[in-house]
Amino acid sequence: MASLTHFDAEGHAHMVDVSEKAVTARVAVAEGYVKMTPETLDLVTEGRAKKGDVMGVARLAGIMGAKQTASLIPLCHPLPVTKVALDLEPDPALPGIRITATVKTTGQTGVEMEALTAVSVAALTVYDMLKAAEKGMQIGGIRLTLKEGGKSGRYEAAT
Amino acid sequence: MASLTHFDAEGHAHMVDVSEKAVTARVAVAEGYVKMTPETLDLVTEGRAKKGDVMGVARLAGIMGAKQTASLIPLCHPLPVTKVALDLEPDPALPGIRITATVKTTGQTGVEMEALTAVSVAALTVYDMLKAAEKGMQIGGIRLTLKEGGKSGRYEAAT
Amino acid sequence: MASLTHFDAEGHAHMVDVSEKAVTARVAVAEGYVKMTPETLDLVTEGRAKKGDVMGVARLAGIMGAKQTASLIPLCHPLPVTKVALDLEPDPALPGIRITATVKTTGQTGVEMEALTAVSVAALTVYDMLKAAEKGMQIGGIRLTLKEGGKSGRYEAAT
Amino acid sequence: MASLTHFDAEGHAHMVDVSEKAVTARVAVAEGYVKMTPETLDLVTEGRAKKGDVMGVARLAGIMGAKQTASLIPLCHPLPVTKVALDLEPDPALPGIRITATVKTTGQTGVEMEALTAVSVAALTVYDMLKAAEKGMQIGGIRLTLKEGGKSGRYEAAT
Amino acid sequence: MASLTHFDAEGHAHMVDVSEKAVTARVAVAEGYVKMTPETLDLVTEGRAKKGDVMGVARLAGIMGAKQTASLIPLCHPLPVTKVALDLEPDPALPGIRITATVKTTGQTGVEMEALTAVSVAALTVYDMLKAAEKGMQIGGIRLTLKEGGKSGRYEAAT
Amino acid sequence: MASLTHFDAEGHAHMVDVSEKAVTARVAVAEGYVKMTPETLDLVTEGRAKKGDVMGVARLAGIMGAKQTASLIPLCHPLPVTKVALDLEPDPALPGIRITATVKTTGQTGVEMEALTAVSVAALTVYDMLKAAEKGMQIGGIRLTLKEGGKSGRYEAAT
Repeated sequence: MASLTHFDAEGHAHMVDVSEKAVTARVAVAEGYVKMTPETLDLVTEGRAKKGDVMGVARLAGIMGAKQTASLIPLCHPLPVTKVALDLEPDPALPGIRITATVKTTGQTGVEMEALTAVSVAALTVYDMLKAAEKGMQIGGIRLTLKEGGKSGRYEAAT
Repeated sequence: MASLTHFDAEGHAHMVDVSEKAVTARVAVAEGYVKMTPETLDLVTEGRAKKGDVMGVARLAGIMGAKQTASLIPLCHPLPVTKVALDLEPDPALPGIRITATVKTTGQTGVEMEALTAVSVAALTVYDMLKAAEKGMQIGGIRLTLKEGGKSGRYEAAT
Repeated sequence: MASLTHFDAEGHAHMVDVSEKAVTARVAVAEGYVKMTPETLDLVTEGRAKKGDVMGVARLAGIMGAKQTASLIPLCHPLPVTKVALDLEPDPALPGIRITATVKTTGQTGVEMEALTAVSVAALTVYDMLKAAEKGMQIGGIRLTLKEGGKSGRYEAAT
Repeated sequence: MASLTHFDAEGHAHMVDVSEKAVTARVAVAEGYVKMTPETLDLVTEGRAKKGDVMGVARLAGIMGAKQTASLIPLCHPLPVTKVALDLEPDPALPGIRITATVKTTGQTGVEMEALTAVSVAALTVYDMLKAAEKGMQIGGIRLTLKEGGKSGRYEAAT
Repeated sequence: MASLTHFDAEGHAHMVDVSEKAVTARVAVAEGYVKMTPETLDLVTEGRAKKGDVMGVARLAGIMGAKQTASLIPLCHPLPVTKVALDLEPDPALPGIRITATVKTTGQTGVEMEALTAVSVAALTVYDMLKAAEKGMQIGGIRLTLKEGGKSGRYEAAT
Repeated sequence: MASLTHFDAEGHAHMVDVSEKAVTARVAVAEGYVKMTPETLDLVTEGRAKKGDVMGVARLAGIMGAKQTASLIPLCHPLPVTKVALDLEPDPALPGIRITATVKTTGQTGVEMEALTAVSVAALTVYDMLKAAEKGMQIGGIRLTLKEGGKSGRYEAAT
């Protein structure tokens, strides 16, 4: 059975040694959503114009959250991200807001956790800004959709 | 239509004034899950004994994450939490790990965001520790299940 | 001559003991500006609509910065702010952007530093977002304009 | 008209992709001041010897603040600074304290924001330590005076 | 046998619920030292005057470190400290530097960890500043000497 | 007499310029202990199985603490660590827990402070988790045992 790389032979958690890994260009894309009622979604899409930009605030929070990844995830390596971009789109069919984050670095480890953290923090921020209107919103579908660079090669999620 | 409390009359984001709110005992409970293959879940449940305690690490990360809530969520009020507890349970029917977080405070605002952040950070940590085995895991079902205290009263999610 | 409260009798820096101070409602207002060329200011005011909301990003940064005050200013007491609001206005006569921050708390020390930090971080963010267009911008006029609550009473800056 | 690099084609804020930028030696120098009454300045210059080293505390705060730049400024890239030095000088003609910060790195983006943040945090700390004596102090003149390294080349402010 | 309060009945770590504890005045005093050669200690005591204030820098670091306690210690409750003071004294008999930290709060939990963290961070900073001269320094004797306030009452260490 | 590198010619603290230093592989190992009564140590060793994993929590705290080193130690350079591992062992002869931390990076400065900080934070966490049982525990013996890489070469502590 595969072993868990974040534990040593005795089962103790550690931050894996990546000293010998090559410094390569790496990119990761993650996605997720916040599901809400059509009425709550209307508040977002109308507010965009006049009442306040929920998605703009969440986008910023996601970008800043990506930079806190190594402080939040215990065994995650710190690394200097070279790009963070978030896309938030209202989806009336959900209904809710779909979030995508793209993160890049040139380093010895991947940026999957940075992309997933960016999506999570943006989703939490959407919830925070809309919770006065609807407490029953749900955050879900958070997953990695693309990963490139590094020894393990390209990963692309099935759609 | 309801207005969004996190924006002022001009649509500018602000941290809402809670100076006049009563200091009351408050509690919030949130839940979520990380979905994975049965093989990956086996790694967690077996490792618990010998190979490394994935759920123990994620529990710690969730507790510490709860304390970073006001740094991560832009318009969230800082407040001193008086209790944070996380419960992580393997669920073979999912299959995956179910996470529940309970947070308390005595303050002027609720701790929904702290509970939701605790669940999110614990879920991200589970993903981080298992991603070498399975990149296709999915985080979902993050929602508030209980809220007590404060003017808006008790909220309990439908099951 | 007045002594400096942040130093003890031997001249050693310390965080002043406020244990015996009354818990009272406190507010502080601070202001400042970023001075730029009319061309750069045009980028901001036009962008507001289509190209990107410089002032919206700076407002968020200022709010989040206020929450980091006690981490940044060595002898500043940590306290839970109950309101943070920033106002950013283009001023063609400057030319540039004028920033005002209002912070409230219910506590044992004032929130002057939180208000001044909010203005500073918002101003730095405006600079960051416009520096590709103009490196010669200048941040200035950062001062306390109002302080209420606490033993020392009301302070209002001369205009 | 020049576009703002911190926004994409749709006007959404993002952290610019610098993956393809060359890693070069970079330096930035910024300056600013805290203006006060001659009496307050006397407290600083006399205290230096006996009553407490205001400028020493502010210098430390500025150095530590430079390391928090990417956490404070939303779209700023994190990078490992290789030098941070602050110079604080009393200027009886101002009257007040003049602050200069020099920051270096070897990286893909410049360190203007780190230098400007160092000056700002040092200035805020000076204010904090002297505010019991004078609330009317003013922080100003914060600007970039030198920038070297990177594609955009050398920038030197007019005096 | 006494149980460990930081674990629940199943042995899972949690942040203990202190919601029902009384808000009382609390103080904690901790101490520790950095042991070094007489030559290294001379560098500190002479530098105090001319070459650089090692103890002044360490004092600041200890004060700021106390404010990060809840971020560093996983199960520690966040609380707003109302006083932090550090005393650093050269002790030729050690030889080395003795550090004492006093922390106060008005809250539901004690500040032992804040005082111990302040001493630890100050000691690490002393090490950092002197390590170019002597790598063999040793940090030790870190312990709680006094604790007052709260249900468990007064604790004073035997000397 | 040796001068202190963390101060300039005027005795002002600064973060030393390491821009010209070579990027090399670096490793540092530090150790320390928490001394306690045999009864308290029994709580740890028994709890490992059933009542809660004190050493597992402290290990995590040490790893996460290592990543905060540059935020805690004022003149410490930020650098991306590539490995952090902690070993905690009960020592009935002490009696207490012995802690060893190993940290690696590929960079321009060493990781001694990261290793020492990891040991210190792990020791503080052990204290926090056991303080309900024994307030008189003592943290000591914190020292660098190995350092490799960089111009100053290999250092190994005498045993």
